[in-house]
Amino acid sequence: MTKPATLNCHVGFNAQHSPMGAFMSFTCGNFGTRGGIGLQIGQPGDQEVFIGFKDGDRYSDATLKCLPFYTAAVDRSADAFLVEQAGPAEQNVKPDAVAFTEKEIARAYGWASDRWVADGLSFTVYSPFGAIPDPAVDDEQRMREGLLPAVIARLELDNTAGKETKTAMFALNHARTGSRILNDDLGSGRVAWAFRREAGGAAELRDFTSSEEGSKIDAEPFIFMRWSASDGVRERYNPVHLLGSCPGFGFEVPAGKKYGITIALGSYLEGFQTNGLDGRYLYTRYFKGLGDVLKMALDNSAKMIASAEALDSKLAGTALSEDQKFMISHATHSYYGSTQLLEIGELPFWVVNEGEYCMMNTLDLSVDHVFWELEHNPWLVRNLLDNFVRLYSYNDEVKVYKSEFAPSTETMQMDPSQTPPPPDEAQLKRPYETKPGGISFCHDMGAHNNFSPKGRSSYELANLTGCFSYMTVEQLCNWSLTAGCYVAKTRDLEWLKANKTVVDACLASMIHRSGDVGFAQFDSTRCIGGQEITTYDSLDHSLAQTRNNVYIAVKSWGTYKALALMFRELGDAASQAKCEELAAKVAAVVADQAVDGVLPAIFEKSNPGYGSRILPAIEGCMYPLYFVNTGFAGCTLDQVYSSPAEKRMFDVLEEHTRNLLLDPERRNLFADGGIKLSSTSNNSWMSKISIFMHVTRKVFHLDEDPRVAEVLRNADAAHVKWQTEGSSYWACCDQIVSGEGKASRYYPRIITSALWME
Amino acid sequence: MTKPATLNCHVGFNAQHSPMGAFMSFTCGNFGTRGGIGLQIGQPGDQEVFIGFKDGDRYSDATLKCLPFYTAAVDRSADAFLVEQAGPAEQNVKPDAVAFTEKEIARAYGWASDRWVADGLSFTVYSPFGAIPDPAVDDEQRMREGLLPAVIARLELDNTAGKETKTAMFALNHARTGSRILNDDLGSGRVAWAFRREAGGAAELRDFTSSEEGSKIDAEPFIFMRWSASDGVRERYNPVHLLGSCPGFGFEVPAGKKYGITIALGSYLEGFQTNGLDGRYLYTRYFKGLGDVLKMALDNSAKMIASAEALDSKLAGTALSEDQKFMISHATHSYYGSTQLLEIGELPFWVVNEGEYCMMNTLDLSVDHVFWELEHNPWLVRNLLDNFVRLYSYNDEVKVYKSEFAPSTETMQMDPSQTPPPPDEAQLKRPYETKPGGISFCHDMGAHNNFSPKGRSSYELANLTGCFSYMTVEQLCNWSLTAGCYVAKTRDLEWLKANKTVVDACLASMIHRSGDVGFAQFDSTRCIGGQEITTYDSLDHSLAQTRNNVYIAVKSWGTYKALALMFRELGDAASQAKCEELAAKVAAVVADQAVDGVLPAIFEKSNPGYGSRILPAIEGCMYPLYFVNTGFAGCTLDQVYSSPAEKRMFDVLEEHTRNLLLDPERRNLFADGGIKLSSTSNNSWMSKISIFMHVTRKVFHLDEDPRVAEVLRNADAAHVKWQTEGSSYWACCDQIVSGEGKASRYYPRIITSALWME
Repeated sequence: MTKPATLNCHVGFNAQHSPMGAFMSFTCGNFGTRGGIGLQIGQPGDQEVFIGFKDGDRYSDATLKCLPFYTAAVDRSADAFLVEQAGPAEQNVKPDAVAFTEKEIARAYGWASDRWVADGLSFTVYSPFGAIPDPAVDDEQRMREGLLPAVIARLELDNTAGKETKTAMFALNHARTGSRILNDDLGSGRVAWAFRREAGGAAELRDFTSSEEGSKIDAEPFIFMRWSASDGVRERYNPVHLLGSCPGFGFEVPAGKKYGITIALGSYLEGFQTNGLDGRYLYTRYFKGLGDVLKMALDNSAKMIASAEALDSKLAGTALSEDQKFMISHATHSYYGSTQLLEIGELPFWVVNEGEYCMMNTLDLSVDHVFWELEHNPWLVRNLLDNFVRLYSYNDEVKVYKSEFAPSTETMQMDPSQTPPPPDEAQLKRPYETKPGGISFCHDMGAHNNFSPKGRSSYELANLTGCFSYMTVEQLCNWSLTAGCYVAKTRDLEWLKANKTVVDACLASMIHRSGDVGFAQFDSTRCIGGQEITTYDSLDHSLAQTRNNVYIAVKSWGTYKALALMFRELGDAASQAKCEELAAKVAAVVADQAVDGVLPAIFEKSNPGYGSRILPAIEGCMYPLYFVNTGFAGCTLDQVYSSPAEKRMFDVLEEHTRNLLLDPERRNLFADGGIKLSSTSNNSWMSKISIFMHVTRKVFHLDEDPRVAEVLRNADAAHVKWQTEGSSYWACCDQIVSGEGKASRYYPRIITSALWME
Repeated sequence: MTKPATLNCHVGFNAQHSPMGAFMSFTCGNFGTRGGIGLQIGQPGDQEVFIGFKDGDRYSDATLKCLPFYTAAVDRSADAFLVEQAGPAEQNVKPDAVAFTEKEIARAYGWASDRWVADGLSFTVYSPFGAIPDPAVDDEQRMREGLLPAVIARLELDNTAGKETKTAMFALNHARTGSRILNDDLGSGRVAWAFRREAGGAAELRDFTSSEEGSKIDAEPFIFMRWSASDGVRERYNPVHLLGSCPGFGFEVPAGKKYGITIALGSYLEGFQTNGLDGRYLYTRYFKGLGDVLKMALDNSAKMIASAEALDSKLAGTALSEDQKFMISHATHSYYGSTQLLEIGELPFWVVNEGEYCMMNTLDLSVDHVFWELEHNPWLVRNLLDNFVRLYSYNDEVKVYKSEFAPSTETMQMDPSQTPPPPDEAQLKRPYETKPGGISFCHDMGAHNNFSPKGRSSYELANLTGCFSYMTVEQLCNWSLTAGCYVAKTRDLEWLKANKTVVDACLASMIHRSGDVGFAQFDSTRCIGGQEITTYDSLDHSLAQTRNNVYIAVKSWGTYKALALMFRELGDAASQAKCEELAAKVAAVVADQAVDGVLPAIFEKSNPGYGSRILPAIEGCMYPLYFVNTGFAGCTLDQVYSSPAEKRMFDVLEEHTRNLLLDPERRNLFADGGIKLSSTSNNSWMSKISIFMHVTRKVFHLDEDPRVAEVLRNADAAHVKWQTEGSSYWACCDQIVSGEGKASRYYPRIITSALWME
């Protein structure tokens, strides 16, 4: 087994520790802020996390030394007196520990683990992952193991060299009221507490003096629940006060011994949790309640730890750099924290929430998650595709404008956490005719557990020219590409045949939107006076508008390639040929745009995006690569680009990318060496950078040029800093503005970095 | 109809607006803080409340003028940058209105209403109350009306003198994510939004130009949901963004018109909401969901408003002073905010939560609520008595000490929101023998929706000498007195007979605890090394210890009187006589303690409480007064005190009280004239002051002395200020430290002030 290496970077950043599909995270790591168990939220929990030890037995007067996962661990005088937000418990939280400093702490961050070591104390959280089981196929035991809404932690204190007893403890001081002792029978030697009906922790004690696995010991951790961790540990007569806000576990370690507790941290949300569609967690079908969850987690802890360590070893054993391994680990942790497997109308319903925004199944995220999900649980991709067709598809018309328009600069460069901008009056007034459009798909299925009405997203609004406008063309591509990848991976022809009408409709819709050039010439009438945008919604002109956008063009090319392969499987040679023809047409158009070895972002000379140079130009090349790698393409990658137009496009894209990466003016790099997706914007998305890097290496092999390899290596190092320093509170962060995580935080999409493991 | 008078005091204080039994409050009133709908919490909600209007139509650029119920209405720069607590919505809340200043605002605060007027705008919340119906007796319609978890508000804008359209609006900007549009069919002309599954608002528009009741109008309010109120009102193209945090209603009022919207604000919490005992809201048996609740509230709004106005009129029409009426109104508003009618095991289960602490059915509050509850819904008092017997009673032994002890001063003067103090070592070490004790009752049934294990409270701890110790004697008195009052009011002999063994056990337990003097000489063994305390848990020595305490003595006397009457009804002449004998014995002991016309608080000369002078000495006289008034005593009040010892006690208590109230040194008054319950403590409880005042007037008629009357009148004025200024954020507050609401906030118990209406 290869263990994760100790981090060399700043270790004080949050990580999400999450089971699969429970929309739950145990978050800790950032110094001086709250974390703990957070349910159904796009941010860390609200508990002060106390993990530490003191000299002497539990009653000793020694001060606790703790990992710095609580507010007072770092001076934060600003938030001391928010009287109206503080309940009685919160007002009385006093710092009752001394925090370890960063130099006293070592951290090793694995694919499925996170280990902290300080002065004989070690704390490790394990969040193993794997295939999410399918109730239509898997048995109850497998379902229980796969959907268990809990993670495992291990707190050990090494006192083998000590001369006197030491006492270790783990406690969560809750900002909200409702902590309690859980009196369910979890088996002998186990103690547990809970927060209302929704979450809780259970622990058991083991002796690790002689082995890493530990041996059973005839004692249990002591449990406490007072209003501070130190008080709870030390209190002789009433360690449990039912009014206490800070439940925890402790244990004394005699001199010469190494003891540890295994901790289960779990959740259980019963009943309907979503609106619009009444959804409950699928795990409630398999678990009776919180006690059942915590008991199973402890019963299975050895297996879960072994599983996490095997995953750690797998990633640690790859030839990737430590920076790359870090990004994949961090991305995986945050990805699962956003996942939510529901049951709606007795059927499973898969949701990935969009990080801090909690939009449900944002389709332009789904298309990026697809590689990971097909690797682990293709049935959930099918579930998503079906739910989009059934509930969140629509038919529109398209607008054929009768006048030109260039957007004003003010309406762009928006952050999606900001209020939508006012519409651009010039665009609103543009006259147009309507023509048939066709099928497309909503941006998302709702937000914050509120499903949108059928056929409507929570995000998209009419009459806008920038952020929050419709993404009709891009979502059409996204569904088609996701479907193509699903069929590529699974060869589920039964599903494909059942969806032939949808695939037909997708092609028709692509064509209706494409005019003479084969891709995205018209905006949807859903925009009313507005214009369509791309998923790069808060970037600048270079990636905002859909029409005549090089990113959308190449993605459209990939979409035709996907549709062509699906029509091949369906035996529809005419449609296949049509798709191939359109692919070649788009490729030719793209190839024709190159000027001096570089492609403009927007093909319209009057558009401010014409001068922008964007790396996501090559993103669409990802899909044919996938079709080749899965064997679905039935050919080599060279053969994908064998038509004259496509060969030309390949060469242009390759040159474009090389020129941008090696640009002497470094217009596509930040000062720190991180990748700048657009030369004209300080916004960059880590998830998209990950895809870009993968295509650069696996399609164009540009990293064979040592100069490019160095650019990418330096970028990897910068990207790690973006996460560990720029976004230390918000765990894995996608949208980076000049090196700082500013938006799209606590985000699942960086899971695209796992492509690097191929 | 007599309307509530406009307030002359500071109007910027919060009021709770609550249906009955839903543990829900719509809170607003304090300037510059959040409020809105709060569920199952002992504090105001977390929404910015925007209620106001602007010149022009909804699209006009005029600035909204709003009531100051939002953070930015008062400068609060301190809490601007709590990044880790703020979701994306919260971060982007920008002040988008100008607040009315206090001098522009008039407020009239009624028993069941709260009306704000500013510059043609009026906003009134109605929270009618009455008998909570009993599912064993009442029909479905009555249950729906009585348990409806909603209040009604009316927002009107008078533009009859205007020359141009104006636009009014009501909006709640949520700090948490999950706002949505409610698409349920609520009937024509109605619009609604919700917060997740738990709460929501609905509105309809009426024309009030010609009448106070208004007439139907063929239009509906416009609905919006953006990230700020002003943006939502003004937005032309997308007034509803499903990602918005600030849903609201608006309406335009043409020149020459007065329009208004009726708003229903309701909640619906489905499924189990409590732990320990699985409880759901009884209203879920009668309502299908939030839409059903809001529809019924609007359907019944006229009736609800009429009902609230009738209650307003009833209180306004009494001969009480405006200060007294204020206190009763404020108390009633907060009382219902703490009420929670559950269904556990298919049976109703009544809970009154203890304000900010959310302890459930704190028995030393229940005994004070009993007069109000018996007036309105005696079946819930029975429900409470039965649940205490069934689940939260216990049997103990008592400790007979073999050495003396005087508590150290450090262990007293605690605030119950503080961490419990360490035990007093001297007390812990006192040797004792045990003797039989008997039945008593837990302090409470749990806290924060977590029911305690059977026979255990959330509050009480062993080995303490002050706050958080056991209240065994006092809770025994409290159950007995509550039972006595229940039988006095209802004459429910069937219940009494069924509970004869409990009543027998109560007498036996009283006797076992009473030694030679007839009351409270021994501590419960549940205290282990500690000592029992009284409900005045955070006062000083004068009211902390139970043993030899004048308050407990007189309360014990009242308890024997109650038990005697119950034994009379049960035909148990021997027990009745025993009770009468004990009552006389206690009375004689009390009478004998007087020194110079004043009773010491603690009868032990070595105790620091010996020098304290406490007004609650007379609290126990409340119960025999109630038995006389209900006819249960079967005699006049004079006859209650007809035995020689009781006549002596009466005279001593009367003189004690007069001397304290007229003390030239004003040791039982604060500087502002407010009542100081103990001469040696700055802690005072408004609920207990209310009882004290009532007994002073109705038992001792001391207010016939104009000097006393003036003291009480001045005190009333001071008490109003305690609430409106000292505790303006926390609505009705019980525990006052030198004029400021410091603890026991958002509290139900001040409902004792309603006794003044008798």
